[in-house]
Amino acid sequence: MSFDRLIERIIELKNPTVVGLDPKLEYVPEFIRKKYTDEDGGTIKAAAKAIFDFNKAIIDEIHDIVPAIKPQAAYYEMYGHSGIKALAKTIRYAQVNGMFVITDGKRNDIGATMEAYTNAHLGSVDIIGNKISPFNADALTVNGYLGTDGITPLLNVCKERDKGIYVLVKTSNPSSGELQDMKLEDGRTIYEAMGDMCEKWGADTIGKYGYSAVGAVVGATYPEMLAELRKRLPHTMFLVPGYGAQGGGAEGLKGGFDENGLGAIVNSSRAVMCAYKKEGCNEREFAKAARREVIRMRDDITQYINLK
Amino acid sequence: MSFDRLIERIIELKNPTVVGLDPKLEYVPEFIRKKYTDEDGGTIKAAAKAIFDFNKAIIDEIHDIVPAIKPQAAYYEMYGHSGIKALAKTIRYAQVNGMFVITDGKRNDIGATMEAYTNAHLGSVDIIGNKISPFNADALTVNGYLGTDGITPLLNVCKERDKGIYVLVKTSNPSSGELQDMKLEDGRTIYEAMGDMCEKWGADTIGKYGYSAVGAVVGATYPEMLAELRKRLPHTMFLVPGYGAQGGGAEGLKGGFDENGLGAIVNSSRAVMCAYKKEGCNEREFAKAARREVIRMRDDITQYINLK
Repeated sequence: MSFDRLIERIIELKNPTVVGLDPKLEYVPEFIRKKYTDEDGGTIKAAAKAIFDFNKAIIDEIHDIVPAIKPQAAYYEMYGHSGIKALAKTIRYAQVNGMFVITDGKRNDIGATMEAYTNAHLGSVDIIGNKISPFNADALTVNGYLGTDGITPLLNVCKERDKGIYVLVKTSNPSSGELQDMKLEDGRTIYEAMGDMCEKWGADTIGKYGYSAVGAVVGATYPEMLAELRKRLPHTMFLVPGYGAQGGGAEGLKGGFDENGLGAIVNSSRAVMCAYKKEGCNEREFAKAARREVIRMRDDITQYINLK
Repeated sequence: MSFDRLIERIIELKNPTVVGLDPKLEYVPEFIRKKYTDEDGGTIKAAAKAIFDFNKAIIDEIHDIVPAIKPQAAYYEMYGHSGIKALAKTIRYAQVNGMFVITDGKRNDIGATMEAYTNAHLGSVDIIGNKISPFNADALTVNGYLGTDGITPLLNVCKERDKGIYVLVKTSNPSSGELQDMKLEDGRTIYEAMGDMCEKWGADTIGKYGYSAVGAVVGATYPEMLAELRKRLPHTMFLVPGYGAQGGGAEGLKGGFDENGLGAIVNSSRAVMCAYKKEGCNEREFAKAARREVIRMRDDITQYINLK
């Protein structure tokens, strides 16, 4: 009922990073794509098989280095129901390999509907007495624009099934400030107000490392805000996108961590998935290249923090 | 590249309503559920087949009365990839029957990822030169917390493929005010600021009825705000949830419409899907009961507006 499971794995591997598995078909090496499109043509089935093979090979190479993966739901929805099947299989495969899985879905809705999303992604669904967990991720990213009743169903499942959520607070994209940086009458920005809600929502789920089951998404691309939010939200663990491809550097991340090197997990997606392209190695070595990149990333980030 | 297609159908049927197809399994009559669980047991496959049959029968009975359906993605994700297949089939079936389809997904992300969601839900995906539209809805609900670059990919597809979006502005749930009603330094509320963004985003997609391709979700449960927003956002069409089951009455809706009875479409989900339960009729008549309810709802709402 907190992020203790994830934090323990971070400590064990001495690595506060997560690999985003956002497998655009163009990231998947030709030899994998061809295998399935030769069989099934240009279908969602072929695409889904190719991305699952790609994910699987990367998980095989990184699971002893990296504590978690973050599949981005959009890149699976792109391939319809076949893509969604690949998402469920990817989650399961990573978990069997000891990884913590954060589904990046940024879901949000009113209470009754949020319960359906919660049951789908983190909980279980009852079908004539048969309990099925369609996705069973360990955590889900969510958007808090609808307020507490859109978050409550998630909190219930966090407590019952030892899951977590990350609420969008300050996102990594260039226009995140348009709404999020607006100043409120009370002097706070909107992202600060959203961050304060995270502290409130998580208050009775704080684990042994001081962090609750309610984390926040805070972009690496705004290092000053990251450091300010770390101080402001002492019980809120951060999921930090924007390192690498989006422009956030490793030194700027250190403000997101506490004095023990905890409190944040940094995501990299494209740089890992496409490491073989950047290296210029044989595409059949894509998974080995991904491994080299996650090691480089771990060392790049941990040099600035105090993780023991 | 506006909501003209939808508005024309509203005028044709003299009916500014939309039926939410949120088929929780408990809403589906026993005889349908049993048919598939006898075949496939308590599986996501059985659940998905049952909800598609349920949706199909309701569409058959309402498509000559109601211009649009709004399937809520959460209730399909609940049944994993099988549920997602039922979503795609439901969208297609409604379109073949002349209905406009709004997928209620409240999706949101940074630009590159929003492009994936856009291609999935409204556009098309390229698989080795083969263009596939996995869902191909006519409109999608979205959350604007990330600002313009999370909206731009949607606008492009709205223009290219004559689609629309509804951005969450003032939602219908009890705690919507926690964030949305906060006052900004400049005197506006957050929901007003979000509404103003909708006007800006839609500015170059205004159609012949004066409404752009960028609509707003504004709850029936806050009738004063609905009326204020109608005046404030003259080019923004409203999708209005919260009528009926959530407590919003028909008279309170009239402020959401313009002087021609246009500018809003009112959603009802549970009251239509579960009309047979409320009526207490034989469950085999569920679709006929849904038809009676959509006629009642149309007459209830149009008595207060000036739709010719």
